[in-house]
Amino acid sequence: MNAIVSIIMGSISDFSIMEKASDFFNEFEIPFEMYALSAHRTPEEVENFAKNAKNRGIKVIIAAAGMAAHLPGIIASMTTLPVIGVPINSSLDGIDSLLAIVQMPTGIPVATVGINNAINAAILASQILALKDKVLQAKLVKYREDLKNKTLKSNDKLAMSKYRFKTN
Amino acid sequence: MNAIVSIIMGSISDFSIMEKASDFFNEFEIPFEMYALSAHRTPEEVENFAKNAKNRGIKVIIAAAGMAAHLPGIIASMTTLPVIGVPINSSLDGIDSLLAIVQMPTGIPVATVGINNAINAAILASQILALKDKVLQAKLVKYREDLKNKTLKSNDKLAMSKYRFKTN
Amino acid sequence: MNAIVSIIMGSISDFSIMEKASDFFNEFEIPFEMYALSAHRTPEEVENFAKNAKNRGIKVIIAAAGMAAHLPGIIASMTTLPVIGVPINSSLDGIDSLLAIVQMPTGIPVATVGINNAINAAILASQILALKDKVLQAKLVKYREDLKNKTLKSNDKLAMSKYRFKTN
Amino acid sequence: MNAIVSIIMGSISDFSIMEKASDFFNEFEIPFEMYALSAHRTPEEVENFAKNAKNRGIKVIIAAAGMAAHLPGIIASMTTLPVIGVPINSSLDGIDSLLAIVQMPTGIPVATVGINNAINAAILASQILALKDKVLQAKLVKYREDLKNKTLKSNDKLAMSKYRFKTN
Amino acid sequence: MNAIVSIIMGSISDFSIMEKASDFFNEFEIPFEMYALSAHRTPEEVENFAKNAKNRGIKVIIAAAGMAAHLPGIIASMTTLPVIGVPINSSLDGIDSLLAIVQMPTGIPVATVGINNAINAAILASQILALKDKVLQAKLVKYREDLKNKTLKSNDKLAMSKYRFKTN
Amino acid sequence: MNAIVSIIMGSISDFSIMEKASDFFNEFEIPFEMYALSAHRTPEEVENFAKNAKNRGIKVIIAAAGMAAHLPGIIASMTTLPVIGVPINSSLDGIDSLLAIVQMPTGIPVATVGINNAINAAILASQILALKDKVLQAKLVKYREDLKNKTLKSNDKLAMSKYRFKTN
Amino acid sequence: MNAIVSIIMGSISDFSIMEKASDFFNEFEIPFEMYALSAHRTPEEVENFAKNAKNRGIKVIIAAAGMAAHLPGIIASMTTLPVIGVPINSSLDGIDSLLAIVQMPTGIPVATVGINNAINAAILASQILALKDKVLQAKLVKYREDLKNKTLKSNDKLAMSKYRFKTN
Amino acid sequence: MNAIVSIIMGSISDFSIMEKASDFFNEFEIPFEMYALSAHRTPEEVENFAKNAKNRGIKVIIAAAGMAAHLPGIIASMTTLPVIGVPINSSLDGIDSLLAIVQMPTGIPVATVGINNAINAAILASQILALKDKVLQAKLVKYREDLKNKTLKSNDKLAMSKYRFKTN
Repeated sequence: MNAIVSIIMGSISDFSIMEKASDFFNEFEIPFEMYALSAHRTPEEVENFAKNAKNRGIKVIIAAAGMAAHLPGIIASMTTLPVIGVPINSSLDGIDSLLAIVQMPTGIPVATVGINNAINAAILASQILALKDKVLQAKLVKYREDLKNKTLKSNDKLAMSKYRFKTN
Repeated sequence: MNAIVSIIMGSISDFSIMEKASDFFNEFEIPFEMYALSAHRTPEEVENFAKNAKNRGIKVIIAAAGMAAHLPGIIASMTTLPVIGVPINSSLDGIDSLLAIVQMPTGIPVATVGINNAINAAILASQILALKDKVLQAKLVKYREDLKNKTLKSNDKLAMSKYRFKTN
Repeated sequence: MNAIVSIIMGSISDFSIMEKASDFFNEFEIPFEMYALSAHRTPEEVENFAKNAKNRGIKVIIAAAGMAAHLPGIIASMTTLPVIGVPINSSLDGIDSLLAIVQMPTGIPVATVGINNAINAAILASQILALKDKVLQAKLVKYREDLKNKTLKSNDKLAMSKYRFKTN
Repeated sequence: MNAIVSIIMGSISDFSIMEKASDFFNEFEIPFEMYALSAHRTPEEVENFAKNAKNRGIKVIIAAAGMAAHLPGIIASMTTLPVIGVPINSSLDGIDSLLAIVQMPTGIPVATVGINNAINAAILASQILALKDKVLQAKLVKYREDLKNKTLKSNDKLAMSKYRFKTN
Repeated sequence: MNAIVSIIMGSISDFSIMEKASDFFNEFEIPFEMYALSAHRTPEEVENFAKNAKNRGIKVIIAAAGMAAHLPGIIASMTTLPVIGVPINSSLDGIDSLLAIVQMPTGIPVATVGINNAINAAILASQILALKDKVLQAKLVKYREDLKNKTLKSNDKLAMSKYRFKTN
Repeated sequence: MNAIVSIIMGSISDFSIMEKASDFFNEFEIPFEMYALSAHRTPEEVENFAKNAKNRGIKVIIAAAGMAAHLPGIIASMTTLPVIGVPINSSLDGIDSLLAIVQMPTGIPVATVGINNAINAAILASQILALKDKVLQAKLVKYREDLKNKTLKSNDKLAMSKYRFKTN
Repeated sequence: MNAIVSIIMGSISDFSIMEKASDFFNEFEIPFEMYALSAHRTPEEVENFAKNAKNRGIKVIIAAAGMAAHLPGIIASMTTLPVIGVPINSSLDGIDSLLAIVQMPTGIPVATVGINNAINAAILASQILALKDKVLQAKLVKYREDLKNKTLKSNDKLAMSKYRFKTN
Repeated sequence: MNAIVSIIMGSISDFSIMEKASDFFNEFEIPFEMYALSAHRTPEEVENFAKNAKNRGIKVIIAAAGMAAHLPGIIASMTTLPVIGVPINSSLDGIDSLLAIVQMPTGIPVATVGINNAINAAILASQILALKDKVLQAKLVKYREDLKNKTLKSNDKLAMSKYRFKTN
């Protein structure tokens, strides 16, 4: 099956964070591809990628970068596919990459998620794909249910922490 | 025609910013609806809205809020539709609302755009809708072309500013 | 005895911080309950909790959350009980959660304490409860006295650090 | 009737912000008193105020200050009454006063509300007082209802902004 | 004469700031060119510009942009000419553009000057050009001398402000 | 009488802020001098000033500067007189100048006061001078008393703002 | 000999930082005293200390505190001795304590040094004391000379790092 | 061969970062010199260095410093050679040194690179030198090519991470 989501990271050093997105897509059985391409070190490859993604059948692009994170915005400037940006924390707690991704000029949006939050990027991509995929939609609903149950279940741990005062 | 995009703002005072999104949708002939609903002042109405949006045919939700901006995240927690968050600058240059929208916990993403950037929210929504709408896709490509031409045209103004040195 | 204070945390991972509040209440013999409930993962349970807290005899609610910390504000929007917010530091030194908790819109306050400061949340709750509980009031006065004495006692350690110059 | 809430501001220049709190108390018929007292310029008067407030029948103290805002914390250190802090924006967008109020050391909490948010301080005080005042409790519930209705009513303005596209 | 410096701005709205650089070059008789080109709206024109600048005889490039300011970095990624970046303050006091310009990844530097400081960009470009232009070098030395004299001359204004105390 | 305090400002544009310091010294009858000298535009004059200040009878130096505010630190590096730094807000709300003044390396302190707070610089200088001047010491005590009385007097304004509720 | 400098720290946990100041004073043979006193936990002891310091022969006070660091300002409000503030980094990289110390209101200055910079506080105190102590003045000049020589000496390490290229 | 680039660091403790610049110059066979000189501890040596650098044949100066980083600006004020500033992270994530270096007043620019980014400083210096050195120019082009190839090569690692879903 051909990939319908691309995960692009600005440096291979971002892989330990971005592999959570690939794990998510594998679990959800969404065909994806994954590349390390840099807006500054491989500008031509980024251009080739961005301009051809739509024709290759890609529906959503996830782009992750740190520091002066230009990759998501540059890809977004070369395609009208939705581009999801993941700010990577490699300096200044990630504030520099967050601002460099989210504060795009009018006309070229990047759908920004939280710092280092690769899973949320994958979920957001899935939510977009699920608009025309009922099976995926059902998986997302179930994923939410699982999150809820996991949180509720965690209360078991708290049982022993509660009020221990006895009036005897 | 039924709305396929919802624009929700946390307060009617956000209207002067968010109407740029409604102007965009009118220009692009995308049916939308627009409400002022507050996560804190009208939690039940927000819940009703979020839980029923998908069944009413909504495909994408844009939610705008300022300060401790909970609205986009709360809506996102109650639907699996893609939710686009617009941080409104009503204090601290908008940094508080940006962080309150983008830094969502794992599991519930909000697709965040720049501070006060209602147009980018509308474009992002359109890019998502265009995944299955070739006419809209063509409009987005033309919009990009227009942006490009407008920028290039602006260089006319610069002609007189250039090097004026004469050696005679 | 029925709980009169609720400690709600957005994730079980906040427990290592919030258990200091439960220790305080146990020491002060204030009946409390403690749950992990997420504004985003378990919105219905949060709503159930918030709307019924007053009728169940709860007087004060402590809510702790990190990142885009919506939990305290969402609970506050569904009850008129005083809600104390504890910003948890799980990113950006806790600045994101501090702003997401304290910068509430007009009408729905959250009584915010310092980042990760679970004990101050417990003391604040006790100060509110002590308005109609003279025994508790006396305990708080004694707690202050103990803090003072502990600080004064710590000066013993400094005795050897002082001016060692000898003129002989 | 004797005051049960004190509003203390660090400088008379804070009055234009803090009078919203006094308006709220007048509207809610909660007896209050209001003074300008500075932690740095009138330390003895602050001490006198803080140490005697409880005996004079005060139940909650609201303290507002800007810049290196010490007033709320200093009052809190001299009483076990709940102290609500209002950071005033007089420099650095109010970030300095917010941090100087909220980041109190363990043992002496200040219940901090948003920057310049005098009304939320008044509401929070009322929520505390309402724990033993059913009439006030009912007023707070009605106030919430009014906020909700005001937000819902504001949607009238939006009616004309919606989808205007006509195909004819 | 052919331009040896290019001034590129991301939007014509930056002109009011960047014209100070063009004024400087005209005063110093340094041939320059000036264009509005956007990394996001006109990526192909930016690429054309950046790849051909060296062959056209350009020695130094000044690139100015605001918000998520990618322009200087993108140009720098496509040429080995020195690129001077000018962060434009169009949001967040210019902190977003400063970080998006200066925090470039290893391998592709941008010589960043202060926020909105177009003149310093022009002076820096001149200092680089002066390495092989003794006439320009002499002009820069004189410019410094003029700055010094202007500062010293400004002390005339202070004469009347000094110690006015009379003992008689 | 010879000056015993020097007020140095980095630019004549800082005069509107720094003249409050000169007004203070005139009122307190402390002989002072006032110059505009720039660490960057007039480095030699700064060096001359700093190295000779002590021999000319200067006891305390006040240095004010904005942006990358080097002036106070550079003067401090060339004298062992106490140097008081005043961060001027000319960009970024003054945070850049505050950090550039206060964060001096170990060995060369600058006594930093608040952003734009020229009066506090003058008072601090006076407190240092008063260590060996009983008349000045008495004036400072009186100044404090006046501050206190002014704050207490301001409460007159508040008399009409208090609780207006009438039960009759 | 009686102490002429007081070092006050808000918590004994600040001792590992502040002992560098006491080491400095011992080395410079300046009699000092050192106490842990908290503005919030021991307000009465702080008041006693501040009001009596001058009469006990203290000339300069160094006060260190973290978080919402009120100690230096509170002491400064109760004495006209110069008070040097040391912001301790115990949260938010020390930005909260820096702002809570330096941003004092007009009338009550605190001479603030860099975050955790206890030695600079000690040097600043010494520079103030040296205004009437020629022996101490000479020690400070020598200390500067030693700093200079230490820096120059450190260049020995760099000798092997220089240009290693050989053309042969 | 005589040095044509100077690397100056404010403290020998910056060497572990700055040696990456010296490694770069050795690899590129660019003669350089390297010194530890402090704007505050060795102001005279800094002045001697800065005023004589041009006559000694230096073409570009790299200056690195942390905290209140004055060194690059002070050197820039005493020469018209291009000065490249490297903010060193020794407190506050390096934001203090970044602002203290980049926010120079009009007239005296410092070409600032990213926090701790010594290599980018070396590359920027090389780009300036390459304006009249074709061999160096060719090396820089090759360096870019190597960066590109290294990034592309890193994709090998990703091959195993891609879509693993099988439908059979």
